[in-house]
Amino acid sequence: MSASGLPLPPGSTIGILGGGQLGRMLSQAASRLGFNVVILDPEENSPAGRVSQGQVVAAYDDPTALTVLGRVAQAVTFEFENVPASSVQALAQDGAWVAPGPKALAVAQDRVDEKTFLNGVGATTVDFAAVDSLDDLLAGLERLGAPALLKTRRDGYDGKGQVWVRSAKMAADAWESIGGRPAILEAKAAFTRELSVIAARGRDGQIAVYPLGENIHKGGVLKTTLAPADVDPKTEKRARAIARAILEGLDYVGVLGVELFDLGDGTLLVNEIAPRVHNTGHWTQDGCVCDQFEQHIRAVAGWPLGPTDAHFRVEMTNLLGDEIDQWTGLAARPDMRLHLYGKAEARPGRKMAHVNRVKRL
Amino acid sequence: MSASGLPLPPGSTIGILGGGQLGRMLSQAASRLGFNVVILDPEENSPAGRVSQGQVVAAYDDPTALTVLGRVAQAVTFEFENVPASSVQALAQDGAWVAPGPKALAVAQDRVDEKTFLNGVGATTVDFAAVDSLDDLLAGLERLGAPALLKTRRDGYDGKGQVWVRSAKMAADAWESIGGRPAILEAKAAFTRELSVIAARGRDGQIAVYPLGENIHKGGVLKTTLAPADVDPKTEKRARAIARAILEGLDYVGVLGVELFDLGDGTLLVNEIAPRVHNTGHWTQDGCVCDQFEQHIRAVAGWPLGPTDAHFRVEMTNLLGDEIDQWTGLAARPDMRLHLYGKAEARPGRKMAHVNRVKRL
Repeated sequence: MSASGLPLPPGSTIGILGGGQLGRMLSQAASRLGFNVVILDPEENSPAGRVSQGQVVAAYDDPTALTVLGRVAQAVTFEFENVPASSVQALAQDGAWVAPGPKALAVAQDRVDEKTFLNGVGATTVDFAAVDSLDDLLAGLERLGAPALLKTRRDGYDGKGQVWVRSAKMAADAWESIGGRPAILEAKAAFTRELSVIAARGRDGQIAVYPLGENIHKGGVLKTTLAPADVDPKTEKRARAIARAILEGLDYVGVLGVELFDLGDGTLLVNEIAPRVHNTGHWTQDGCVCDQFEQHIRAVAGWPLGPTDAHFRVEMTNLLGDEIDQWTGLAARPDMRLHLYGKAEARPGRKMAHVNRVKRL
Repeated sequence: MSASGLPLPPGSTIGILGGGQLGRMLSQAASRLGFNVVILDPEENSPAGRVSQGQVVAAYDDPTALTVLGRVAQAVTFEFENVPASSVQALAQDGAWVAPGPKALAVAQDRVDEKTFLNGVGATTVDFAAVDSLDDLLAGLERLGAPALLKTRRDGYDGKGQVWVRSAKMAADAWESIGGRPAILEAKAAFTRELSVIAARGRDGQIAVYPLGENIHKGGVLKTTLAPADVDPKTEKRARAIARAILEGLDYVGVLGVELFDLGDGTLLVNEIAPRVHNTGHWTQDGCVCDQFEQHIRAVAGWPLGPTDAHFRVEMTNLLGDEIDQWTGLAARPDMRLHLYGKAEARPGRKMAHVNRVKRL
C-alpha cells in the first residue's frame, strides 16, 4: 500500500498504536468517516481492537508488527505519547503518513525539552530546573523555593513518577522515590484553577481550537471537565494564541491537548501538553458536532478540519474503578450521555468510562 | 452464556443479524455503551463486521451459526425484517433475548398481514386487496380503482417487487412482472407528502417517540429526510398516537419506523412499518443526543430509553452509488456531518453514505 495521496479517501486504512479507550474512540470516529482501522497493542482483544477491523498483537517496537502495520495502513497515529521514535521512523519508511510527527513526540516525551520548547515559542511555563543528581535537586530547590514538584523527565502519567519536595531535608528521599532517574524540578504555580484547550492543526496548516475546559483533578487523576469554561474573552484569546504557537512551533498535525494554570491575574502558564486526543476533550463528543476524535482523524487523513463551536454546555466526569457500577442510575438520566470503554476488569483508579452531562447553551 | 438478567450489563455481548450499514451503526452505538458485538452475515468482512468484535460468516438460517450466536450473545437483534422465524426461535431457545419479537417480524414480513394488523389497531391504511391470481387482481382493480399498486406480499424493498397497474388491460403484464406470486393490491393514496415517525418501546413498556420527519423519495429510494418536520401539533399528536398503537399492538421492543401518507386534510394513513432502525431516522444521529441506534440498543438490552427531543434541524441526504465521490466537497462543509458505510463497491443505486446537514433550532 503506502504513499497514497492526501486527502486519504474513505476505504483507506488507518493504523492506531494503542488499544485503550482513546484508540477505541478514535477508531469509532474513523469508521464513521468510512475508514478501516487496524490497532497495534500488546494486549489481545483490546478495547479498541474490539471495534476495529483488526488488531496486531505485539509490542509497540516489534519490527515485524510495524512492517505489517506500515504496509496495511496508509496513515498511522497513536493514542499515547510514549511511542518509540524508532517505531515512527519504521512506519514512515514503509510509506505510511504518520501524525503527529517525530518533533512533537520527542518534545512531549521529555519534560525538560517540553518546557524549553514551550518557553521558546512564548508559551510560558513555571520556572524549572533539570535534575540529574541529588546536588542538582538541592540547587534547584534553592533557586525555585520549596515546595517544588519533582518529576521524572520521561514516562509517568496521571500523577505517577512525581513527588512534592517540601524542604531540602526531604530531597534525598524524594530523589530515591523517583528512582534517581533524570528528572525535572518545577516551581509551584500559584494557580486558582486548571484550564485546558484542545486544538487541532491540519496537514495544510489550518488550525481549529475548541472552547476552553475547566478541570478538576482528584488524587492526580482528572475527575471533571466543565466546558465551555466560564472565562473572560481575554483569557480565551490568550489560550488560543498559546495553542496556535505550540501547534505551529511543532509543525503539528492532529489534535493536541494543552493544560493551563490560570493564575487569576490574567496570566496563563502551560502545565503540560499531550500530542494526542485528551481526556479533557471528551466533552466535545456531546458538546460539538465534530468531536476531538473525528477532528484528529480528519487532520491525520489530510481532510479539512471540522467546526469547533459548542452547542451544549457539558460536565464531563470520569468513572474510575468500581464507580462504573453507577451505570444503571446514570443510564436512566436523560441529561447524561454514557461512554463506556468495554474494559473487563474494574481495577481501582482505572478509567472505565466517562459521562457527559449536557445542558442547552 | 444465555438467560442473563436485564438490564444487560456493559461487557455483555449483543448479536446482530445483518452486517450492512444499519448493523454497522447499531454496532457503533452498542460499543459506546460498553457492549461487545458479534455480527451474523453471509458476506465476509461486512461493513458491520469491520467495527465489531467478531463476525460469524454464514447464512441467516444456518443452524450451527445460530447456535454459536445464541450462546455467545445475551441479546440478539437484526437490521432487516426478513429474518427467518425459525432463526429467531433457535436463538431464543439458546436463551438469548431476541428483540423485536416474532409477532413484529411475522406482521412486517407479509404486506397483507401488516395492513390487516394496522387497521385492527386503528392505524388506518389505504384500501387494499389480497391477490393470489389474475382474477383477484382484476377484482381488486374493479373495487379499488386504477391506478393501483401491486406488490408482492413478501420480500421486496426500495421499490423492488412492485408495479403500478394503470388499467385492467395492464393487469396480466403486471401480474407476470411480479412473478405471479402472492401479492397485495393497494389503492392509490392522494397524499401531499410522506412523513415518518421513529418510535421505540422498552422492555418495560416505556415508549419514546422522535419528532416527525418529512421524506422525499427518488426512483423508489429515500433521498432526503427533513426533521423535525414542519407539522401542526394535531398532526404530530396523531402520528404519535399511531406509533403508540402499533408498538403496543405488537408488544414491541426496540425502534420501529412508521411511514405515513399525509393527505393534507388532517388525515394520516400508514404506508408501511419497519421493525428496525430506519433510514428516515438517520437524522437523529446529529439532531438528538440519543440517536435511534443507541435507542434501539437500549431497548434490546432492557435499559431505560433515552430522550428524543431535537436540538438541531437536520436535512439528511442519502448518497447513492457514485454520489459518494462528492465526499471531498462535503467534508469541507462545517454544516455537513458525514456518515460513511465503508462499502468497497459503489454500485449504481447502492446506499454508500448519508450526510446530515445541521442547523441550530
